[in-house]
Amino acid sequence: MPDNRSDVPATGEAEERKTSGGGPATVTIAYIAESAGVSVPTVSKVLNGRSGVSDETRSRVEELILRYGYRKPPKNRSNLVELVFRELESMWAVEIIRGVERAARRNKVSVLVSEFGLQDAPARTIDDTVERRPRCVLSVAWLSEEERDQLQAKGIPFVVFDPNRELPDGVPFVGATNFRGGQAATRHLIELGHRRIGLITGPDHPFCLARTAGYCSALIEAGLPVEPDLMVKTLLTREDGCAAARDLLSRPDRPTAVFTANDMQALGVYRAARELGLRVPDDLSVVGFDDLPAVAWADPPLTTVHQPLADMAVAATELALALGRGDDVPQVGLEIATSLTVRESTAPPKG
Amino acid sequence: MPDNRSDVPATGEAEERKTSGGGPATVTIAYIAESAGVSVPTVSKVLNGRSGVSDETRSRVEELILRYGYRKPPKNRSNLVELVFRELESMWAVEIIRGVERAARRNKVSVLVSEFGLQDAPARTIDDTVERRPRCVLSVAWLSEEERDQLQAKGIPFVVFDPNRELPDGVPFVGATNFRGGQAATRHLIELGHRRIGLITGPDHPFCLARTAGYCSALIEAGLPVEPDLMVKTLLTREDGCAAARDLLSRPDRPTAVFTANDMQALGVYRAARELGLRVPDDLSVVGFDDLPAVAWADPPLTTVHQPLADMAVAATELALALGRGDDVPQVGLEIATSLTVRESTAPPKG
Repeated sequence: MPDNRSDVPATGEAEERKTSGGGPATVTIAYIAESAGVSVPTVSKVLNGRSGVSDETRSRVEELILRYGYRKPPKNRSNLVELVFRELESMWAVEIIRGVERAARRNKVSVLVSEFGLQDAPARTIDDTVERRPRCVLSVAWLSEEERDQLQAKGIPFVVFDPNRELPDGVPFVGATNFRGGQAATRHLIELGHRRIGLITGPDHPFCLARTAGYCSALIEAGLPVEPDLMVKTLLTREDGCAAARDLLSRPDRPTAVFTANDMQALGVYRAARELGLRVPDDLSVVGFDDLPAVAWADPPLTTVHQPLADMAVAATELALALGRGDDVPQVGLEIATSLTVRESTAPPKG
Repeated sequence: MPDNRSDVPATGEAEERKTSGGGPATVTIAYIAESAGVSVPTVSKVLNGRSGVSDETRSRVEELILRYGYRKPPKNRSNLVELVFRELESMWAVEIIRGVERAARRNKVSVLVSEFGLQDAPARTIDDTVERRPRCVLSVAWLSEEERDQLQAKGIPFVVFDPNRELPDGVPFVGATNFRGGQAATRHLIELGHRRIGLITGPDHPFCLARTAGYCSALIEAGLPVEPDLMVKTLLTREDGCAAARDLLSRPDRPTAVFTANDMQALGVYRAARELGLRVPDDLSVVGFDDLPAVAWADPPLTTVHQPLADMAVAATELALALGRGDDVPQVGLEIATSLTVRESTAPPKG
């Protein structure tokens, strides 16, 4: 999580800042220009990386900018963080909104929630967002190249929350440690004594690939074979999880444990197990991923990898606000640690 | 649901409006004053119900206001609907936000989500809301008298969503038909042949009282006794539902069916039944209330009364926006119809 520096004003359109380098209390472009013996437009050109300045002048101005700690004042922006969902369906949405709202409250900004879904006309688009001039944008799961370009052109910083596609380097994002989560789930099953561990995973989203890699890594680490026969790729729904589990569990050498890429698939495994007369965890151990509120009330309560959605949302909001303030942010891509929540769906294999 | 009149501008600070009564295309206070042969402050006094105007003048001005269809222009407001939660924990929150966001999108306004919880300082309060000058406020579950007064004083219309306490007459609210929902649940059990039907209900919130009344009404309608012994009042949690069910189901003349005031209590009944070796629905029928997403995946899937949260949220948003526009709203208190969702937790009693 980016640190929440107390010496940087969290709100307000701070036009001028204290210096740390011996200049006046507030450094303006005019002051830099005067010190460098150049015009204000010349300093502006250097600040904005535009041409038409000699190398010698550019480096002198840059040196002064650095020495006086000058920063471009933020543009005229509303006091809003905009949180964009593609579709407000997910059961995670409340956790995400909670985290964003809490971080926003701490920073004295408000949270605007938008849904870009196309179910009914008129759909909201990035144009509306740009028009509202939010202080920053958090976009859940995705932000297209065009959308990113539009925001960038208007100087509106953004963070992609839990990206569901690969992003180019340098695009700010906050996700979870999916690889480590997959490792932890599989190690837990191995430690219980399981040797034939099935995997039900989802489409090639970055988070599914990482969870699958965590599974493979734990098997390899334990000297167990990675058997393609034990790995099924399907959709991230209960129905598809159930169908995949029916297939895996009907085999003569069925796995004694299954790790799934999300909780909905795990609930599908429960159903398939019941249909086949297998008891969880006596006959079959199951580990999910996400830790949706509902899985604690499943029968039996599900062992699963906890995704710290609210913490991720706090981190994403702090990161986006820091980018908006022009803070030096050490790293714009973050994965927040998952943790294994052991409940009652896992036990040593029989016999 | 308030009708969404197409002849009233949904957005924009329409300062002046078309008339329907033969005056100029735009009616201003000045025009009314001129027509009535009085000063602008006099018209303003009449509009605002203040004293200092003779009865004769008042009725002449009122007649002209009516004839020309003059309406007070809305005050300078942001393009925001503010949705206030006391605590963003509930699994319903996404459904509510979805409904509000969809209605807001249709009306070309944005949705700001605030949490007034006191978990961490600084908490948001109604003062912050007033400062943001939203077009209207929707408050989930509650809005205190002081809060209502503050909003009223600033001319910010509000609607209480699914109130959890009694509100004075005239306070705008949108809820669900809780009484009818309780009736439908109980009638369903009676139609299946149940005669001893237990009730687990919650604290004396208006919605719990109404659900309980629906249960009693259906029993009376069917000529069945309303037995206080079969009615347990407890908290609206799974744990409390489980404890209440343990009590009800351990009796020698245990009920063959249980209706609970919410889904969490119903999941608690599932647990108690399992502990006591009773199968749902073979040995015990269960009906919940709310239709949370998770209960469709319970084992067995729960029969429950569906609360149309997204529809309620749309209605509440439309109502609040209509109040903000100064539309003639026929009724400011609305209950949106519930419906019974029959799944697999109900069956005829054995024997």
